[in-house]
Amino acid sequence: MIGRLNHVAIAVKDLAAATAVYRDTLGGRVSDAVPQPDHGVTTVFVELPNTKIELLEPLGEDSPIARFLDRNPDGGIHHLCYEVEDILAARDRLIGEGARVLGGGEPRIGAHGKPVLFLHPKDFCGTLVELEQA
Amino acid sequence: MIGRLNHVAIAVKDLAAATAVYRDTLGGRVSDAVPQPDHGVTTVFVELPNTKIELLEPLGEDSPIARFLDRNPDGGIHHLCYEVEDILAARDRLIGEGARVLGGGEPRIGAHGKPVLFLHPKDFCGTLVELEQA
Repeated sequence: MIGRLNHVAIAVKDLAAATAVYRDTLGGRVSDAVPQPDHGVTTVFVELPNTKIELLEPLGEDSPIARFLDRNPDGGIHHLCYEVEDILAARDRLIGEGARVLGGGEPRIGAHGKPVLFLHPKDFCGTLVELEQA
Repeated sequence: MIGRLNHVAIAVKDLAAATAVYRDTLGGRVSDAVPQPDHGVTTVFVELPNTKIELLEPLGEDSPIARFLDRNPDGGIHHLCYEVEDILAARDRLIGEGARVLGGGEPRIGAHGKPVLFLHPKDFCGTLVELEQA
Protein backbone atom coordinates (compact mmCIF):
# COMPACT_ATOMS: atom_id res chain seq x y z
CA MET A 1 0.00 0.00 0.00
CA ILE A 2 2.54 2.64 1.01
CA GLY A 3 4.51 4.06 -1.89
CA ARG A 4 7.26 6.67 -1.95
CA LEU A 5 8.49 8.44 1.14
CA ASN A 6 7.22 11.90 0.21
CA HIS A 7 9.10 13.72 2.98
CA VAL A 8 10.55 13.65 6.46
CA ALA A 9 9.30 16.59 8.53
CA ILE A 10 11.62 18.18 11.09
CA ALA A 11 10.15 20.71 13.52
CA VAL A 12 12.42 23.58 14.58
CA LYS A 13 12.11 26.75 16.63
CA ASP A 14 14.29 28.85 14.31
CA LEU A 15 13.65 28.16 10.64
CA ALA A 16 16.37 30.51 9.40
CA ALA A 17 18.98 28.74 11.51
CA ALA A 18 17.76 25.30 10.43
CA THR A 19 17.79 26.37 6.78
CA ALA A 20 21.38 27.54 7.21
CA VAL A 21 22.34 24.14 8.69
CA TYR A 22 20.90 22.29 5.71
CA ARG A 23 22.15 24.76 3.10
CA ASP A 24 25.54 25.81 4.42
CA THR A 25 26.70 23.03 6.72
CA LEU A 26 25.22 20.05 4.87
CA GLY A 27 25.31 21.62 1.40
CA GLY A 28 21.69 20.83 0.51
CA ARG A 29 19.40 22.65 -1.94
CA VAL A 30 16.75 24.54 -0.01
CA SER A 31 13.55 26.34 -1.03
CA ASP A 32 12.34 29.73 0.10
CA ALA A 33 10.33 29.86 3.32
CA VAL A 34 6.56 29.67 2.73
CA PRO A 35 4.11 30.74 5.46
CA GLN A 36 1.14 28.36 5.61
CA PRO A 37 -1.27 30.07 7.99
CA ASP A 38 -3.98 27.44 7.40
CA HIS A 39 -1.59 24.83 8.78
CA GLY A 40 0.05 26.86 11.54
CA VAL A 41 3.56 26.43 10.14
CA THR A 42 6.13 28.06 7.90
CA THR A 43 7.90 25.53 5.68
CA VAL A 44 11.24 25.19 3.91
CA PHE A 45 11.94 22.16 1.74
CA VAL A 46 15.36 20.57 1.37
CA GLU A 47 15.31 18.94 -2.07
CA LEU A 48 17.28 15.69 -2.07
CA PRO A 49 17.71 13.58 -5.22
CA ASN A 50 15.14 11.03 -4.05
CA THR A 51 12.89 12.74 -1.48
CA LYS A 52 12.49 15.92 0.59
CA ILE A 53 13.14 17.13 4.10
CA GLU A 54 10.41 19.52 5.27
CA LEU A 55 11.58 22.01 7.90
CA LEU A 56 8.65 23.32 9.97
CA GLU A 57 8.53 26.39 12.22
CA PRO A 58 5.43 27.29 14.25
CA LEU A 59 3.29 30.07 12.79
CA GLY A 60 0.66 31.91 14.80
CA GLU A 61 -1.29 30.79 17.85
CA ASP A 62 -2.11 27.12 18.35
CA SER A 63 0.48 25.80 15.92
CA PRO A 64 0.21 21.99 15.75
CA ILE A 65 3.96 21.72 16.37
CA ALA A 66 4.19 24.06 19.38
CA ARG A 67 3.74 21.32 21.97
CA PHE A 68 6.25 19.08 20.20
CA LEU A 69 8.83 21.87 20.40
CA ASP A 70 8.09 22.39 24.11
CA ARG A 71 9.08 18.75 24.61
CA ASN A 72 11.95 18.90 22.07
CA PRO A 73 13.52 22.35 22.36
CA ASP A 74 16.40 21.48 20.01
CA GLY A 75 13.89 20.44 17.36
CA GLY A 76 13.39 16.92 16.08
CA ILE A 77 11.76 14.67 13.54
CA HIS A 78 8.03 15.33 13.70
CA HIS A 79 6.56 12.90 11.15
CA LEU A 80 7.12 10.74 8.08
CA CYS A 81 4.89 11.15 5.03
CA TYR A 82 4.19 8.17 2.77
CA GLU A 83 2.34 8.43 -0.53
CA VAL A 84 -0.67 6.22 -1.21
CA GLU A 85 -2.60 5.86 -4.47
CA ASP A 86 -6.07 6.02 -2.92
CA ILE A 87 -6.32 7.68 0.47
CA LEU A 88 -9.87 6.50 1.19
CA ALA A 89 -8.99 2.89 0.41
CA ALA A 90 -5.88 3.27 2.57
CA ARG A 91 -7.94 4.64 5.45
CA ASP A 92 -10.46 1.81 5.24
CA ARG A 93 -7.70 -0.80 5.19
CA LEU A 94 -6.01 0.77 8.21
CA ILE A 95 -9.22 0.94 10.21
CA GLY A 96 -9.91 -2.67 9.27
CA GLU A 97 -6.48 -3.58 10.65
CA GLY A 98 -7.36 -1.85 13.92
CA ALA A 99 -5.07 1.17 13.46
CA ARG A 100 -6.15 4.59 14.71
CA VAL A 101 -6.61 7.36 12.15
CA LEU A 102 -6.46 10.80 13.75
CA GLY A 103 -9.01 13.59 13.44
CA GLY A 104 -12.14 11.56 12.72
CA GLY A 105 -10.76 9.79 9.66
CA GLU A 106 -11.79 12.34 7.04
CA PRO A 107 -8.88 13.43 4.82
CA ARG A 108 -8.12 17.12 4.80
CA ILE A 109 -6.11 19.15 2.33
CA GLY A 110 -2.47 19.18 3.43
CA ALA A 111 0.32 21.67 2.96
CA HIS A 112 0.93 20.41 -0.60
CA GLY A 113 -2.68 20.80 -1.69
CA LYS A 114 -3.41 17.06 -1.62
CA PRO A 115 -5.64 15.01 0.69
CA VAL A 116 -3.81 13.76 3.78
CA LEU A 117 -4.46 11.74 6.91
CA PHE A 118 -2.41 11.32 10.08
CA LEU A 119 -2.07 8.01 11.94
CA HIS A 120 -1.62 7.46 15.66
CA PRO A 121 2.06 7.16 16.66
CA LYS A 122 1.35 4.40 19.17
CA ASP A 123 0.13 2.15 16.35
CA PHE A 124 3.18 2.89 14.14
CA CYS A 125 6.38 2.27 16.09
CA GLY A 126 6.19 5.56 18.01
CA THR A 127 6.21 7.52 14.74
CA LEU A 128 3.59 10.02 13.60
CA VAL A 129 2.73 8.93 10.05
CA GLU A 130 1.12 11.14 7.41
CA LEU A 131 -0.43 9.55 4.35
CA GLU A 132 -0.73 11.73 1.27
CA GLN A 133 -2.66 10.94 -1.87
CA ALA A 134 -0.02 10.59 -4.61
CA MET B 1 27.12 17.90 -0.30
CA ILE B 2 24.38 15.61 0.98
CA GLY B 3 22.91 13.34 -1.66
CA ARG B 4 20.14 10.74 -1.42
CA LEU B 5 18.34 9.95 1.80
CA ASN B 6 19.66 6.40 2.19
CA HIS B 7 17.28 5.44 4.99
CA VAL B 8 15.24 6.51 7.98
CA ALA B 9 16.04 4.36 11.03
CA ILE B 10 13.26 3.54 13.50
CA ALA B 11 14.21 1.88 16.79
CA VAL B 12 11.70 -0.60 18.24
CA LYS B 13 11.58 -2.99 21.15
CA ASP B 14 9.78 -5.75 19.23
CA LEU B 15 11.07 -6.17 15.70
CA ALA B 16 8.54 -8.85 14.76
CA ALA B 17 5.65 -6.61 15.77
CA ALA B 18 7.15 -3.61 13.93
CA THR B 19 7.72 -5.72 10.83
CA ALA B 20 4.08 -6.81 10.95
CA VAL B 21 2.97 -3.15 11.16
CA TYR B 22 4.94 -2.24 8.05
CA ARG B 23 4.11 -5.43 6.13
CA ASP B 24 0.51 -6.12 7.10
CA THR B 25 -0.96 -2.80 8.21
CA LEU B 26 0.91 -0.47 5.84
CA GLY B 27 1.39 -3.02 3.04
CA GLY B 28 5.13 -2.43 2.62
CA ARG B 29 7.75 -4.83 1.25
CA VAL B 30 9.97 -5.98 4.11
CA SER B 31 13.25 -7.92 4.22
CA ASP B 32 14.15 -10.79 6.51
CA ALA B 33 15.57 -9.88 9.92
CA VAL B 34 19.39 -9.78 9.97
CA PRO B 35 21.28 -9.92 13.28
CA GLN B 36 24.24 -7.53 13.23
CA PRO B 37 26.17 -8.40 16.39
CA ASP B 38 29.00 -5.98 15.54
CA HIS B 39 26.47 -3.14 15.63
CA GLY B 40 24.32 -4.30 18.53
CA VAL B 41 21.14 -4.40 16.48
CA THR B 42 18.95 -6.69 14.42
CA THR B 43 17.67 -4.99 11.26
CA VAL B 44 14.70 -5.29 8.93
CA PHE B 45 14.46 -3.06 5.87
CA VAL B 46 11.21 -1.76 4.44
CA GLU B 47 11.91 -1.23 0.73
CA LEU B 48 10.06 1.82 -0.57
CA PRO B 49 10.22 2.89 -4.24
CA ASN B 50 12.64 5.75 -3.45
CA THR B 51 14.34 4.94 -0.12
CA LYS B 52 14.30 2.54 2.82
CA ILE B 53 13.01 2.41 6.37
CA GLU B 54 15.43 0.56 8.65
CA LEU B 55 13.74 -1.06 11.66
CA LEU B 56 16.23 -1.61 14.50
CA GLU B 57 15.87 -3.86 17.55
CA PRO B 58 18.54 -4.04 20.28
CA LEU B 59 20.84 -7.08 20.10
CA GLY B 60 23.04 -8.16 23.00
CA GLU B 61 24.45 -6.13 25.87
CA ASP B 62 25.26 -2.45 25.39
CA SER B 63 23.17 -2.00 22.26
CA PRO B 64 23.57 1.59 21.01
CA ILE B 65 19.78 1.95 20.85
CA ALA B 66 18.96 0.61 24.34
CA ARG B 67 19.01 4.00 26.03
CA PHE B 68 16.91 5.56 23.26
CA LEU B 69 14.26 2.89 23.83
CA ASP B 70 14.33 3.50 27.58
CA ARG B 71 13.36 7.10 26.79
CA ASN B 72 10.99 6.13 23.96
CA PRO B 73 9.29 2.88 24.99
CA ASP B 74 6.88 2.93 22.02
CA GLY B 75 9.86 3.19 19.65
CA GLY B 76 10.68 6.19 17.50
CA ILE B 77 12.78 7.61 14.72
CA HIS B 78 16.40 7.15 15.73
CA HIS B 79 18.37 8.73 12.87
CA LEU B 80 18.41 9.86 9.23
CA CYS B 81 21.13 8.63 6.88
CA TYR B 82 22.29 10.81 4.00
CA GLU B 83 24.67 9.63 1.30
CA VAL B 84 27.83 11.61 0.53
CA GLU B 85 30.29 11.02 -2.28
CA ASP B 86 33.44 11.42 -0.19
CA ILE B 87 33.05 10.87 3.51
CA LEU B 88 36.43 12.30 4.48
CA ALA B 89 35.81 15.48 2.50
CA ALA B 90 32.36 15.69 4.11
CA ARG B 91 33.85 15.29 7.58
CA ASP B 92 36.44 17.99 6.97
CA ARG B 93 33.81 20.40 5.66
CA LEU B 94 31.58 19.77 8.67
CA ILE B 95 34.38 20.28 11.17
CA GLY B 96 35.33 23.46 9.30
CA GLU B 97 31.72 24.65 9.74
CA GLY B 98 31.96 24.00 13.48
CA ALA B 99 29.73 20.92 13.56
CA ARG B 100 30.48 18.06 15.93
CA VAL B 101 31.30 14.67 14.44
CA LEU B 102 30.77 11.87 16.95
CA GLY B 103 33.28 9.19 17.94
CA GLY B 104 36.52 11.00 17.21
CA GLY B 105 35.76 11.73 13.56
CA GLU B 106 37.15 8.53 12.05
CA PRO B 107 34.64 6.75 9.79
CA ARG B 108 33.80 3.19 10.74
CA ILE B 109 32.20 0.48 8.68
CA GLY B 110 28.45 0.68 9.08
CA ALA B 111 25.71 -1.91 8.92
CA HIS B 112 25.74 -1.79 5.09
CA GLY B 113 29.50 -2.42 4.79
CA LYS B 114 30.30 1.20 3.88
CA PRO B 115 32.14 3.93 5.82
CA VAL B 116 29.83 5.98 8.02
CA LEU B 117 29.99 8.88 10.48
CA PHE B 118 27.42 10.17 12.96
CA LEU B 119 26.85 13.88 13.64
CA HIS B 120 25.77 15.49 16.90
CA PRO B 121 21.98 15.99 17.09
CA LYS B 122 22.32 19.38 18.76
CA ASP B 123 24.07 20.71 15.65
CA PHE B 124 21.44 19.27 13.25
CA CYS B 125 17.96 20.37 14.36
CA GLY B 126 17.73 17.80 17.16
CA THR B 127 18.23 14.94 14.68
CA LEU B 128 20.94 12.29 14.82
CA VAL B 129 22.43 12.30 11.30
CA GLU B 130 24.41 9.45 9.77
CA LEU B 131 26.52 10.10 6.69
CA GLU B 132 27.29 7.10 4.51
CA GLN B 133 29.79 6.96 1.66
CA ALA B 134 27.65 6.40 -1.44
